[in-house]
This record gives sequence, C-alpha cells and structure tokens, in this order.
Amino acid sequence: MPEPFRTTRLVEFHDTDMAGIMHFASFFQYMESAEHELIRSIGFSVHEQVDGQTLSFPRVAAACEYHSPALSEDVLEIAVSLTRIGNKSLHYRFDFSDAGRQVATGQITSVCCRMEPGQPMVSVPLPEEVKEKLGQFLV
Amino acid sequence: MPEPFRTTRLVEFHDTDMAGIMHFASFFQYMESAEHELIRSIGFSVHEQVDGQTLSFPRVAAACEYHSPALSEDVLEIAVSLTRIGNKSLHYRFDFSDAGRQVATGQITSVCCRMEPGQPMVSVPLPEEVKEKLGQFLV
Amino acid sequence: MPEPFRTTRLVEFHDTDMAGIMHFASFFQYMESAEHELIRSIGFSVHEQVDGQTLSFPRVAAACEYHSPALSEDVLEIAVSLTRIGNKSLHYRFDFSDAGRQVATGQITSVCCRMEPGQPMVSVPLPEEVKEKLGQFLV
Amino acid sequence: MPEPFRTTRLVEFHDTDMAGIMHFASFFQYMESAEHELIRSIGFSVHEQVDGQTLSFPRVAAACEYHSPALSEDVLEIAVSLTRIGNKSLHYRFDFSDAGRQVATGQITSVCCRMEPGQPMVSVPLPEEVKEKLGQFLV
Repeated sequence: MPEPFRTTRLVEFHDTDMAGIMHFASFFQYMESAEHELIRSIGFSVHEQVDGQTLSFPRVAAACEYHSPALSEDVLEIAVSLTRIGNKSLHYRFDFSDAGRQVATGQITSVCCRMEPGQPMVSVPLPEEVKEKLGQFLV
Repeated sequence: MPEPFRTTRLVEFHDTDMAGIMHFASFFQYMESAEHELIRSIGFSVHEQVDGQTLSFPRVAAACEYHSPALSEDVLEIAVSLTRIGNKSLHYRFDFSDAGRQVATGQITSVCCRMEPGQPMVSVPLPEEVKEKLGQFLV
Repeated sequence: MPEPFRTTRLVEFHDTDMAGIMHFASFFQYMESAEHELIRSIGFSVHEQVDGQTLSFPRVAAACEYHSPALSEDVLEIAVSLTRIGNKSLHYRFDFSDAGRQVATGQITSVCCRMEPGQPMVSVPLPEEVKEKLGQFLV
Repeated sequence: MPEPFRTTRLVEFHDTDMAGIMHFASFFQYMESAEHELIRSIGFSVHEQVDGQTLSFPRVAAACEYHSPALSEDVLEIAVSLTRIGNKSLHYRFDFSDAGRQVATGQITSVCCRMEPGQPMVSVPLPEEVKEKLGQFLV
C-alpha cells in the first residue's frame, strides 16, 4: 500500500505578508523543501552525482490551490505523493493541512536533467534506483 | 481591441539558484509584481481603501509552466491579460518572454476580499470601477 | 551559567544562488527564524498579545560577517545569545557553524513596540517576564 | 567630485510582512540589486568573464540600520557609494530614503573571487579597469 511521505513546516514570519497571512508564492518554496526531504529520505539528493554525471531536477510546471490561510507559526503538515513516475519526469502532489483544516494543494512536475558547467541542461532518463525507491510514494 | 498590459523585469541575482537559473518559485513573485503594476496603472492599489473598506486580493489558485530557463540579468518581458473578470474574482494570465524566446506562462486567480483587523477575510463584489477599467485587458 | 539557545537549520535549495552557495541575505531570515524559536522556547511569541496590547519586535539594526560558504543541504548549527537586554531593546548574537567549521556571525537589535492597526508603531518597555526569561541566554 | 550612483526601487508586496512593513532582510536584496545595477552602469556584470576567468563577488560582511519603516509601494531612492576600493575588496554604502525621509543605511563588503566549477572560490585582485571606473563613486 503506497503511503505519502509526511513532514511538517512551521510558517516563518518572513513568509507572511502585510495581509497577515503566508504569502502565496512561499508555498512553492515549502513544496520544494518537502520534495527534497523526500528525496533525501531515499538516500539521494538534488544535484546528485550519479555515474559521474551531475543530475538536477528543473521544473516544467507548478501549481497551487489555496483553501484557507496559513498564519505565522502555524505548523503545516505536508503529505507528498507521486501521481506519476515517467521515464524522465516526476509528478508530485502536496497536501498542506493544519490539524485537519485543509490549507492548500499543490503540484510540481520536474524533469531529470544532466548538468554540465556552461552547457544547456539535457533531459535524461531517471536512474532506475530512484524510480524504484520513489514507487513507495506513488498513489 | 483588448491588449495585454506590458512591463519588464530584470532577473535579479538573488532569484537564481545553484542550478544557475531563476528559481521556479520566484516567477510567482514576478507575476504578482506585474499584476500590482497593472492595478496601479488603472489608478488603484492592492490593499485599497474603497468606501471606508480595506480591500485585498488573496489568491485562490496560481500556476506556472516553464518553457526555457531565465538567467541572471535577463530582461523578461511580461504580458498580463485578464482571461475572466468575475463578480468577485479576477483571472490573470502572464506570458514571460525574452527577445522572442518564450520563457514561462502563468495564471493567478484572486478574490476581492474585505479586510478587518482581527477578523477573517470576507469575499465581496469587485468595485464596478475596477471591473470597468480592467476590461481593457480582458482577452 | 548562561548558555546560548541552540538550534539547527538545513540550507534549502531555494536559498542558494548561481554562485552555488547560500545567498548572503538568507542568513538574516535564518537568524530571525532561530530568534523566534528562542522566543517560543520561553513561552512567548512574536506578535504577542500582552495585557491587551499587540507587541511586535521591529529591527533597528542587523549585521552579518561571512567566514565560509554554506552549501545546499548543509545542516547549520545556530547558537543564539543575548548580548544586552535593554529597557525596550534586545541585542542578539548568532553563531553559525557546520561540524566545527565557522560559517557566519550575526547580530540583530530589535525594539519592543506596541502595534495598533493604522497607527505608527510605538516603542514600549519589554514585559518584565520576557526580560527575566531571556536572562538565561544573556552572555 | 565623486557622486553616488542613484536608483530607485518600489517596495513589493511580497517583501512586506505581517507587521505591515518591508521585512528587514529584504533590504539586503534591494542593496544587492542596486549594487549590480551600478556594476552594469560601468559596463561590467557580476559573474563576469574577464581574461578567460569567471569572476564573482561573494560578501564577507553586510549590515543595515533601520531608521523608519518602508511600506508597500513606497518608491525608495537608493544612493550607492564606495567607501573603500581595496586591492581585492569593495566596500559599499547604501542610503535608502523616501521623499527626504531617511529609511535605512546599509553596508556591504564584497571580495573579488575567481570561480571554477567544483573548486573553492579563490580571492584575486580586482581588474584595474573595474577599480578605475568605480572610482567615480568613491566618497
């Protein structure tokens, strides 16, 4: 049975705005932070050296729907799932909640790319080991 | 003939990341910055006092598709249109390009709300004058 | 014997820049985040209601010296001390290190202010209880 | 007669916080943005290729004093001077004001470094041409 990866993030004062709530753009930073924690949890890292290549995961799409405001010092629970594992792409889903209250739902699609200094990024197949290990979060 | 609102933003060094490109979350800050410039261009402001009420425009949805990387000191051209003007909501579209190269396409949906200190935000109809003036950017 | 408050922060990808290191301005956000954690540890909060007043702690000065770069996913240890507790002001010191390597040293001076909606902030004496509890971190 | 480099920055909504004012850490981003505009004004760039070397300017120190709050959509005037041009280091001063009202005063010290992928940064002498051209802003 696949289960989301679960983590929490406290809403920082510097992520609020003059409307008194967490700024909408900061949710994308919290999504990425949770995504990277998931990747570390399977023993990998963003900007990983694999077989002598530096891999990175630039985004091709990101989205968020906001259901209720997040306030400074709220402790947001974030559930991260994969909705699709492609040959070169990863499709994440993020559910933000606070003690049962639904706060936001987000998506990020990233593509596995080979980085070389001074060169454009080139998309490459995901390492098999990454795909296998991420399978546990595929819903 | 409706025409998008056009502005430019230089990609700041602090908006790049270690992959050497503009961070995907920063596009949402640039979208908001361009949206607010559009609102100022019709003589209004975010967090406006209208008829003794403070109005604000929290977001209910935001999305971005990334077509090609933006680099530090690129001067991004941003075309902002409204794809729908609802009774209480505004649906924006943003096209980022750099000298003809398509960089990103984004959307933001915001809702007109009345703010009172210590109270939850309450959605209210858009002022008629705002709706009328925004019509020039409706595609 | 006063002892610093100790916490850790992982360097987030979005806080790096194209030079491949944590951006210098992000250290100020990490300092504030650690300062607020210290304040929560003594049972208070920034933007606290005390005796019917909303208190906040705007900054009058901030500084940082950078000794060695912080990289993405470094786990920074942050030691927070108070170097002075004034009648209305708090003087913090922050030591960032990574496994014994000195990374940065920062200072923030904040002033206790009463906030009222639509009014300028007015500095007020620190609540006695806050001063007493912060004494444990005074070096 | 040396004269500061003068530019302006509008305070963006996303740089405000729940206290209703521009966040103290954002001043450092605005300083850097103005510094880079100054560097472009003399025909150079951060992350410049000079004689086949990539040069960058990491910071060794940064500081800011806050005199009065900056509000959303304030247009801050920023005067940038050099207080010292060393062999390898640049010492900047920033004066933020708004229609005569003093808002903040900042300093940044940066060091000219050679960047090579995968190598630690090495400090190197400033190119003579950069030193000469920056002389016009030395107070």
